[in-house]
Amino acid sequence: MATAFDPHVGLAWIERVTAGGHEAVRDGLAVEEPLEIRVDGEALAVTMRTPGEDEELAVGFLAGEGLIAGAEDVDAVGPTDDLASNVIEVRTHGGLRRDPSGERRFYLTSSCGVCGKGALEFVRGAAPPSQSDRGAGALSPETVLAIPGAARREQHAFERTGGLHATALFGAGGAPLVVREDVGRHNAMDKALGALVLEGRYPVGREDLYACLSGRVSFELVQKASMGGLLGLLAVGAPTTLAVDLARERRLLLCGFVRGGSFNVYAGSHLLAG
Amino acid sequence: MATAFDPHVGLAWIERVTAGGHEAVRDGLAVEEPLEIRVDGEALAVTMRTPGEDEELAVGFLAGEGLIAGAEDVDAVGPTDDLASNVIEVRTHGGLRRDPSGERRFYLTSSCGVCGKGALEFVRGAAPPSQSDRGAGALSPETVLAIPGAARREQHAFERTGGLHATALFGAGGAPLVVREDVGRHNAMDKALGALVLEGRYPVGREDLYACLSGRVSFELVQKASMGGLLGLLAVGAPTTLAVDLARERRLLLCGFVRGGSFNVYAGSHLLAG
Repeated sequence: MATAFDPHVGLAWIERVTAGGHEAVRDGLAVEEPLEIRVDGEALAVTMRTPGEDEELAVGFLAGEGLIAGAEDVDAVGPTDDLASNVIEVRTHGGLRRDPSGERRFYLTSSCGVCGKGALEFVRGAAPPSQSDRGAGALSPETVLAIPGAARREQHAFERTGGLHATALFGAGGAPLVVREDVGRHNAMDKALGALVLEGRYPVGREDLYACLSGRVSFELVQKASMGGLLGLLAVGAPTTLAVDLARERRLLLCGFVRGGSFNVYAGSHLLAG
Repeated sequence: MATAFDPHVGLAWIERVTAGGHEAVRDGLAVEEPLEIRVDGEALAVTMRTPGEDEELAVGFLAGEGLIAGAEDVDAVGPTDDLASNVIEVRTHGGLRRDPSGERRFYLTSSCGVCGKGALEFVRGAAPPSQSDRGAGALSPETVLAIPGAARREQHAFERTGGLHATALFGAGGAPLVVREDVGRHNAMDKALGALVLEGRYPVGREDLYACLSGRVSFELVQKASMGGLLGLLAVGAPTTLAVDLARERRLLLCGFVRGGSFNVYAGSHLLAG
């Protein structure tokens, strides 16, 4: 079967070993390549990502870090000719909202995302937009259970590789609005929220949006959702202690292990209908 | 049933939603907390990690980055009294092998790990120890298939939370030598290799050791394995394109999707017996 070119999927000859023996097969692999994010001519960050939505990734990352507030801070975003196009440049309207160059420590992380913060005391980041002044759209348990499957049906690269994380954004009606895939769970979230930035819909104000994650939930993913004004997160996997703490603090819905007809509610059950 | 205190596992009251209704249950969560790594009095990095093996994590991270060569570079490692003990300090014998303070860009990553590198051109890192001068111990397909289950039986915190990655180190005989768990896959690898550092067995020279990973394989995990002198990696999940490229370049065994009685060989089939 011929398949269309997909920048998310690479092909390689590999050996498949089963009880019946070995055979060479052509297999789909999740593409991973470094991307340098430049802002106004200066290198800011490098991420190992799956190519394809670099503009979204760049602006979503900057927004999640509080370095831009939304589309109004972005004049242009696009690739440069350097280094086999693995550089994306963001031109800001009037500079970043804070100067990250003073944040000199370098960061490793669990599933990453806190890279670039200045110290332990900054990990919690900026205050998110308040959700308390809007009539938040609650989710029914049926919608919670249906969402991962609806999102999965749009994870085309996962179907071919088994090697990508995904973030879907959806409203109380349950239809996925944006689905993004990446080798990194943080990148998938940055891309999905970055799509909102590019459409001028970030941070979410009047829309009632949630994120659905294909894997586990770390602190930083809750942080990104909160910065973007989402009402909560559903995940197929488990949350961490710190993810639960932050979701409770910010009154976000946090559901985990959403699979097999049941789920756990870790925070924000006021956003669960019925 | 009473369970022993485990620093990897936190407990929280949550709501479990099934077709039969809601019930409040006390649930185990993977603990995630920030850890600052200090070297000779200076903050170098912050990671979101699962507490419990901070010494291993710190020295394993430094070794994987090429900042220390092994135990001979470490005079002492231990917690400080600051910030609720979320600081670990490494005292080196004669400073780091290179000065990371010049690496001023900050880094986000896919599943992280490249934090702290200086630029795209440094992502590939230092050359690993050569494996070509030793008679490498090949793995039988039966051992490959048995290892994830053997490792899983020692993932005690995963059993209680469903929310941790694991790295196991093992030899051609198949028995796990070290099994470490963490909310971050890179941390789990750093802890396992850090255990070797603390025992003076890093980088691996005469031992034929492999890593078994509970999840997916990114470039950086292959890099860490290679820096440590391992012969290869087995994973329950999928590798990325760049992980496969690096494993082929360094002649490491790389098996993925090791589950359900079969697996794929992406690189290093000369290390597969039979």
